[in-house]
Amino acid sequence: MTSRATGPAAGGGQPHQAGEPVIDHPIIAVDAMGGDHAPEAVVAGAVAAVRQLGIKVVLVGRPGQVRPLLAGHGMLGQIRLVAAEELVAMNEGALATWRRPRSSIAVACQLVHLGQATAVMSAGSTGAILSLARLRLRALPGVIRPGLAVTLPIRPRATILIDAGATSDPKPEMLAQFAQLGSAYAEVALGVSKPAVGLLSIGTEPGKGNKLAKRAFELLSGDQHGGLPIKFVGNVEGGDLLAGKVDVVVADGFAGNIALKTLEGTAAYALGTVRAALSSSAKARMGSLLQRKELRELQDAFDPETYGGAVLLGLEGAVVIAHGSATQRGTAAACGLAASLASGQIAERIKERLGPHRQGFRRRT
Amino acid sequence: MTSRATGPAAGGGQPHQAGEPVIDHPIIAVDAMGGDHAPEAVVAGAVAAVRQLGIKVVLVGRPGQVRPLLAGHGMLGQIRLVAAEELVAMNEGALATWRRPRSSIAVACQLVHLGQATAVMSAGSTGAILSLARLRLRALPGVIRPGLAVTLPIRPRATILIDAGATSDPKPEMLAQFAQLGSAYAEVALGVSKPAVGLLSIGTEPGKGNKLAKRAFELLSGDQHGGLPIKFVGNVEGGDLLAGKVDVVVADGFAGNIALKTLEGTAAYALGTVRAALSSSAKARMGSLLQRKELRELQDAFDPETYGGAVLLGLEGAVVIAHGSATQRGTAAACGLAASLASGQIAERIKERLGPHRQGFRRRT
Repeated sequence: MTSRATGPAAGGGQPHQAGEPVIDHPIIAVDAMGGDHAPEAVVAGAVAAVRQLGIKVVLVGRPGQVRPLLAGHGMLGQIRLVAAEELVAMNEGALATWRRPRSSIAVACQLVHLGQATAVMSAGSTGAILSLARLRLRALPGVIRPGLAVTLPIRPRATILIDAGATSDPKPEMLAQFAQLGSAYAEVALGVSKPAVGLLSIGTEPGKGNKLAKRAFELLSGDQHGGLPIKFVGNVEGGDLLAGKVDVVVADGFAGNIALKTLEGTAAYALGTVRAALSSSAKARMGSLLQRKELRELQDAFDPETYGGAVLLGLEGAVVIAHGSATQRGTAAACGLAASLASGQIAERIKERLGPHRQGFRRRT
Repeated sequence: MTSRATGPAAGGGQPHQAGEPVIDHPIIAVDAMGGDHAPEAVVAGAVAAVRQLGIKVVLVGRPGQVRPLLAGHGMLGQIRLVAAEELVAMNEGALATWRRPRSSIAVACQLVHLGQATAVMSAGSTGAILSLARLRLRALPGVIRPGLAVTLPIRPRATILIDAGATSDPKPEMLAQFAQLGSAYAEVALGVSKPAVGLLSIGTEPGKGNKLAKRAFELLSGDQHGGLPIKFVGNVEGGDLLAGKVDVVVADGFAGNIALKTLEGTAAYALGTVRAALSSSAKARMGSLLQRKELRELQDAFDPETYGGAVLLGLEGAVVIAHGSATQRGTAAACGLAASLASGQIAERIKERLGPHRQGFRRRT
């Protein structure tokens, strides 16, 4: 409810009060129909999240399909089900928001907007989720444009990339604000205090990059970015994404998405090449038998399912987008991420970081 | 010399004549002072290129340092040496062009401009080389802006990425032209006929991307791009760079450089993780002993030295930029690439592809 009670209408922008009640039992609205393996894997993941992580969920989808699955898990009547007969196909994009106003994603967002849930989780089409969430959920006070954040799989300490594709042609001011959103995320989800922020560019010197990056660098270096101080450490390059140099990498949505897809594609290619090499001769295969444990760990280290998914930051509630190919495990992890963001009051933290804002900034996206 | 004789002053833009003499013995101006291991590794690489590949080279650098190295290889008097006392440090960028007008890179470019060499090879600072080459070498007729092309290490067939960082804020017309430059490169260096060209964007559908990519998509889809027909297959994503889907990927220099650095960084990270995993236990190490051959091949597959380096396309002659850390092997490969581009008359091919051009396009960059 926090996202409602302290929304713009209630006079947001106040610093977060220490001692304010923390949401111990957030309710996650789960889009049962989104994802390559929906609804089976999604329902199974939601059930696992309830049983193993003690999370409260509401499933949103076609009762005719979801009810038998819940019964199969022995959870009929234990998990609330909200009906949404329409669904958005995985290959549908933003236009689906207009074609299917009562889709499972739209209804899940609506539950958050009405205060019946604290966060949304969907493994559906990213384009459709982004567009529906922006349409149905109120932007937090002062937020110019929400940003899509992903956690990059580095050990021991993760790096957050924001924006990973929500806005293709952002203004420099939006990039500066993504630094605030990303810092709030690093604090809440990773428990980092004073997260170090880098700006994705070409060349590490201040003068390097395109016009947009150069202007964003100026905003981030000074105190013109608004809100709480940011620990800005300067430009980072594509090769630094997995170097663990910074906690948050700020990017425009175009370059950020290209970097993310390149990273995922290269990791998959490299591991595929390794697998092929290690099974290309009888001797090599024999060697692999001795490395079974290590090769399995390697596989896990690069598995996006472990990390729970992407998060759209800057709107009321929290919106978690699981990988389209998410299995039961990935869905449960995404529900866990949604719950931890809601418990950590990510929306409150963002409002606190952005601070008292100018009226002109309070616009919906 | 072709690049001079058919330069703009001589009335360029004529289609390439079949039967025109091919440059069998191009001369490569090698910047002896550029690179982390210069001049030793560069001189050794140039000597290897002469001896093993039958390439003619001119070394440009400090005679006091280069002469003893040539003597050590028993090549004193066999390879021409052009003096350049100044050098550009690896951490110097574009400004060095003004501070050191007689640097080894500048003199090497000047040799091409004067017709005393056909191509330049340097492992020095990329920023300095780009800026010096643009200053000293004439743009080919019709070329709006030269593009930096790199060969991505995929097997069996490579993919070329252009622009990998020469222009951070290009116009859509430049991206359309990079498709021509990249196609010419794929024809000459990889022997591909009718190279398939993709546009780096976010999402594969035509409407996806930022404003720049959307406009470039329109130009590439129609026949407004000028010159010979392009085999444009649509948008590709970051994950497609190593998928072998297309022969040429066109990108703006900002996103292209970020993609390239992300790809290199991720490949290095993945291989490092593999290496660590396979040596993390006695059993796993024993397994690796059985995979020695395969692990060595894996290392080679991801070694940028094999591919000869990046190429600046669209200027008279050919400009090859080897990796800063290039060893003797990398330098020799880069000389080989420069020679094959010159022999294949890359400049002629580009002029042919761009076709009769409007006067307004004939501007220096």
